[in-house]
Amino acid sequence: MQNGTPIVKAKKTFIHDNFLLENDFAIELYHQYAKDLPIIDYHNHLPPKEIAENKQFENITQIWLEGDHYKWRAMRAQGVEEQYITGDVSDLEKFEQWAATMPYTLRNPLYHWSHLELKRYFDIDELLTEKNAQAVYETCNQALQKEENRVVGLLEKMKVEVLCTTDDPTDNLHFHQQIAKSDLSIKILPAFRPDKAILIENSKFVKYIQELGVAANIEIKDWESLQAALEQRLDFFHSVGCRLSDHGLEQIVAVDFSESIVNQAIKDRLAGKEITATAAAQYQSAILHYLGLAYHKRGWVQQLHLGALRNQNARLLREIGADAGCDSIGDFSQAASLGKHLNRLDQYDQLAKTVLYNLNPRDNEVFAAMLGNFSSSGIQGKMQYGSAWWFLDQLDGMEKQINTLSNIGLLSGFVGMLTDSRSFLSFPRHEYFRRLLCNIFGKDIAKGHLPNDLDWIGKIVQDICYYNAKEYFDFS
Amino acid sequence: MQNGTPIVKAKKTFIHDNFLLENDFAIELYHQYAKDLPIIDYHNHLPPKEIAENKQFENITQIWLEGDHYKWRAMRAQGVEEQYITGDVSDLEKFEQWAATMPYTLRNPLYHWSHLELKRYFDIDELLTEKNAQAVYETCNQALQKEENRVVGLLEKMKVEVLCTTDDPTDNLHFHQQIAKSDLSIKILPAFRPDKAILIENSKFVKYIQELGVAANIEIKDWESLQAALEQRLDFFHSVGCRLSDHGLEQIVAVDFSESIVNQAIKDRLAGKEITATAAAQYQSAILHYLGLAYHKRGWVQQLHLGALRNQNARLLREIGADAGCDSIGDFSQAASLGKHLNRLDQYDQLAKTVLYNLNPRDNEVFAAMLGNFSSSGIQGKMQYGSAWWFLDQLDGMEKQINTLSNIGLLSGFVGMLTDSRSFLSFPRHEYFRRLLCNIFGKDIAKGHLPNDLDWIGKIVQDICYYNAKEYFDFS
Amino acid sequence: MQNGTPIVKAKKTFIHDNFLLENDFAIELYHQYAKDLPIIDYHNHLPPKEIAENKQFENITQIWLEGDHYKWRAMRAQGVEEQYITGDVSDLEKFEQWAATMPYTLRNPLYHWSHLELKRYFDIDELLTEKNAQAVYETCNQALQKEENRVVGLLEKMKVEVLCTTDDPTDNLHFHQQIAKSDLSIKILPAFRPDKAILIENSKFVKYIQELGVAANIEIKDWESLQAALEQRLDFFHSVGCRLSDHGLEQIVAVDFSESIVNQAIKDRLAGKEITATAAAQYQSAILHYLGLAYHKRGWVQQLHLGALRNQNARLLREIGADAGCDSIGDFSQAASLGKHLNRLDQYDQLAKTVLYNLNPRDNEVFAAMLGNFSSSGIQGKMQYGSAWWFLDQLDGMEKQINTLSNIGLLSGFVGMLTDSRSFLSFPRHEYFRRLLCNIFGKDIAKGHLPNDLDWIGKIVQDICYYNAKEYFDFS
Repeated sequence: MQNGTPIVKAKKTFIHDNFLLENDFAIELYHQYAKDLPIIDYHNHLPPKEIAENKQFENITQIWLEGDHYKWRAMRAQGVEEQYITGDVSDLEKFEQWAATMPYTLRNPLYHWSHLELKRYFDIDELLTEKNAQAVYETCNQALQKEENRVVGLLEKMKVEVLCTTDDPTDNLHFHQQIAKSDLSIKILPAFRPDKAILIENSKFVKYIQELGVAANIEIKDWESLQAALEQRLDFFHSVGCRLSDHGLEQIVAVDFSESIVNQAIKDRLAGKEITATAAAQYQSAILHYLGLAYHKRGWVQQLHLGALRNQNARLLREIGADAGCDSIGDFSQAASLGKHLNRLDQYDQLAKTVLYNLNPRDNEVFAAMLGNFSSSGIQGKMQYGSAWWFLDQLDGMEKQINTLSNIGLLSGFVGMLTDSRSFLSFPRHEYFRRLLCNIFGKDIAKGHLPNDLDWIGKIVQDICYYNAKEYFDFS
Repeated sequence: MQNGTPIVKAKKTFIHDNFLLENDFAIELYHQYAKDLPIIDYHNHLPPKEIAENKQFENITQIWLEGDHYKWRAMRAQGVEEQYITGDVSDLEKFEQWAATMPYTLRNPLYHWSHLELKRYFDIDELLTEKNAQAVYETCNQALQKEENRVVGLLEKMKVEVLCTTDDPTDNLHFHQQIAKSDLSIKILPAFRPDKAILIENSKFVKYIQELGVAANIEIKDWESLQAALEQRLDFFHSVGCRLSDHGLEQIVAVDFSESIVNQAIKDRLAGKEITATAAAQYQSAILHYLGLAYHKRGWVQQLHLGALRNQNARLLREIGADAGCDSIGDFSQAASLGKHLNRLDQYDQLAKTVLYNLNPRDNEVFAAMLGNFSSSGIQGKMQYGSAWWFLDQLDGMEKQINTLSNIGLLSGFVGMLTDSRSFLSFPRHEYFRRLLCNIFGKDIAKGHLPNDLDWIGKIVQDICYYNAKEYFDFS
Repeated sequence: MQNGTPIVKAKKTFIHDNFLLENDFAIELYHQYAKDLPIIDYHNHLPPKEIAENKQFENITQIWLEGDHYKWRAMRAQGVEEQYITGDVSDLEKFEQWAATMPYTLRNPLYHWSHLELKRYFDIDELLTEKNAQAVYETCNQALQKEENRVVGLLEKMKVEVLCTTDDPTDNLHFHQQIAKSDLSIKILPAFRPDKAILIENSKFVKYIQELGVAANIEIKDWESLQAALEQRLDFFHSVGCRLSDHGLEQIVAVDFSESIVNQAIKDRLAGKEITATAAAQYQSAILHYLGLAYHKRGWVQQLHLGALRNQNARLLREIGADAGCDSIGDFSQAASLGKHLNRLDQYDQLAKTVLYNLNPRDNEVFAAMLGNFSSSGIQGKMQYGSAWWFLDQLDGMEKQINTLSNIGLLSGFVGMLTDSRSFLSFPRHEYFRRLLCNIFGKDIAKGHLPNDLDWIGKIVQDICYYNAKEYFDFS
């Protein structure tokens, strides 16, 4: 062995103490500075109901495979029959198919994520394969029967301090209120995601607007009443602790608009009429601008997730529904309209703190550079380039996001990682992020790109892993 | 010497046994698992005539420089006069100019390719320069006079098992038939490339459709007869062993179309009339959809090469013709129309196995993610993200393709390398691919990103280098 | 310490002799071949007036922070109040704010640039922080009082041999003429940047055309007289030593145009009328074509800087003006129109030597490949892929530009680095480039990707750092 050297050979397990840490600087940064910090998971898709109920999962398939479109895509690529993925075979059979797929996911983030999760939640060191599938299944299921492995216990084990779900404006936030009244020490907060009110051309738009009116107890018949209804929901979300919004759009629409055309567009649409693409664009520009002002007024942080191309597979959409693992990466233009939107809000100092995520990595530099145009006096890191999203949430993608942010902005002010997950077993992604972050710094020190000052760099690491987010978000 | 270390210093030659292999894991993977496997070269541009005739090349210029636009571009960039590139000076003079250019190609793939080819085919260890040009010329020419260095011998030396050429639907496949009847053990199969039937706006379209009609013995006068003619050619190609198609397009066109507009478009065009851009788009969408169904019906694999911007230099196009080294990389939109095209075929389960190649590396992630939307039950790796194409066929480009596929899909199911070449001396590109692939795995093991299990990873390497392609293509 | 190893630990300072050099090959290449070469800085934004006057700067804030929008953006991202950036607080207070920001710029090029500049110009080894701000301020200011640290001395210290400023066609080049008559041995030459004459839709276009007419002493009333005026300015610039032009555009416009429509467009615009987007596009295509021919006729080199999205922040544009650090990266289409523009000039052999820069790194390969379509017999490296520009002028960006050029073109003919800076303290960026270039070669040698032949690679390094530019530009 020449260059294929020590670190691994000395270890007995794949997920060992120094996993991803390539030198002693990285090791010290991770173990002395990053490892033990709490987690602020400011964006995920967990169901508050299951937290309120402190749900106990019956088996590992239900907590690990259900709803996980990453794993579904891998199984499908491997040729696994759909019934073993989303169909009605037994949970054990599904797990066996996943286990058989696992070795073929090497170099995909699933390979690292899955083994890290088996290790952290179930103390399993074995590599999952077809052969040990049943044994692993039983070990996990036994563990899940323990009281400490109900969902609250799982969150506590990971030191989760704050957790923000993603919620529709029509949601009554009943479970968030219930949790707030309980003695749970983890802060479980809603986040406001009004995509359905923005996408005026969707076939379900009219029905949605009616539901929104019901939720707000306001009859929505025009642009003014729509704003009133949203205002009511924004206030209500705020009262339940929401300090964060989220939009998931192909691209920002930011044409010049007139209130009268916008008003006519919504009225026409509610009357069941077709509207022109121009009218739709004006409507979307107007509501995005309105919402931007509304977030700023309340001191919220706004998130923009741009660039997904959804529901590409009509067959599986029909059979399984949305979020079935048939979304992918779009190649939309982003720069000009994004700049116009942000500038229109910034112009009179009404631009909220913003976290911007791109799905197409070709836009990394465009997004990072755009953010630098809209800083504000007195707010450190107001404009945030969000951690690598979805398909980019893997070693290379995260390293590229960190490098882009470093080169074009200030990494030191970064609010760091989030899981964006639908599973209670995804929190080791924070560990994964912390390890690779420490490794990046460690390699820089070894190469002399950074001074060998672990006190200082350790502090920066801690800021990125925890303190920046704590400071940035107003989760009082 | 501190970090600039051992591997190289110990070797006497540039192309040594462990070329590109940076650690012992990589070395073992390459030498124990990858090196000796046969080659399935499922896409290239070799002339079947020269294989049928078992051509003997007169000199190294004719087999190595003629038609090689990579080398032409390098020589032009270096300022070499055109007559020494494509003009009528002697073959020796051309070779001397190439030899003088060689040292200036350092860090370009030509530098590695050329020396690897000199080593493997002619056992030449020297670095080619102006100084040894004449000596190398003579050594190569002498070798080429040997019976074993006729083209069949050159293919056998590289363990080529299957080789797919690229053929126009009008081709009579005479040489493929002749080869099939011979006792040649290498399978030489045609591939169906109907670009000229798709590009309805091209000035030579009408003439081409007439030739197609002649080839099919069907008078093409409308959309129905065009399909009939294509059907005839598809069946004929199939009968000669074709199991693979190829399209080379700027982007997929996939608008909604009506049969009547498509029918009128082809009739107008054949009548010498101009057609609108809308009609052209409908025609192209229709024929691409028709061809997609036709490939699926026959169990073929379809290849899509998207994003080239051809014939940019009108002066050299006039003087030399197409494929003169004046093509480059386009920046077309790709995602939405590609998704629509694939979905339209997948929707009723009529999407053929597909290998997708992008020329602009900014589209890597878009393509890799799109493929994951269209997997099929029971087919491992149905949707393939093709190996780095053309300008991207170099260390960085191939590593990026492998990493993108790894991160977003499953590398383990990859059908691997192809030469895409017009030269009989390009087959060491498979060796080059295998070395870099093994090196990627070797580095991952050394870093602990993969378990140190060479049996298993060696198997994956073998699958990617040979067995996946053998399984994937129906080259019975 | 396992892998986090020697190089750094042995050094006492951050900027040490072997900064950025990771192995002994790199060290030898840098110190034996690259380090001592003179500098040809063929593109920057230095004010010729300050060179003519041999200005002495009062303090480090004035020479280092004023006009440096890189530092401004970093300070804003850090939340520093605008008055401490571009406002009217004292120079010491501004410096203190910058010093306090410095540690937070780690991994941004500013961190390396700034410490390298403090070391080279002021021999300061300390890392700049809030704590030593005042001491550093005083040390620098004292040094700046020395006669040798007037601007000419600063340039001489860096071995600057040629320096090209960026000048508007209306400029009288008075200071360039004054310098030419002086005994300054550094060549200070103008470069011709006619953007304001191209952007016909700008609100200040008419006023600018009037100024251009005054400068040329020609009444501009139509397309013919505009060309006559530009011709006069081109000749005048040529007479003062200009051999280089520059355009900074979002993208090349290259539609087909008719002289009559172009003529009408300029006449309408001068008459205060609105013109259509079509007319504007024809005008821009025509003037770009005209200028291309004019550069070729004079044997100039043309530079094209494509892809910036300027003045995104209306608030700061209003308060501070242009170049305030509120520009960013656009995502315009580039390939087709760029190809058409270059081909139109090349077609009859009237394409000038060209240096092409992209701001969006997603276009790296498109640009590098496009250049390879337009080489010319007899000119080595006629079409140049310019060094990483602006936001990309950092380790990763420069390495990517070098790798793209290597993989798709010929690195060996590259004309290398330029500062593109507005500050007299930016010349160590050439050192930074040389170090990273040597490191790239050094790593390639260590990996066996290049032969271990330092004589030859050392020569290539010297060509890229100095001799290629000396040969390429006609700075007689």
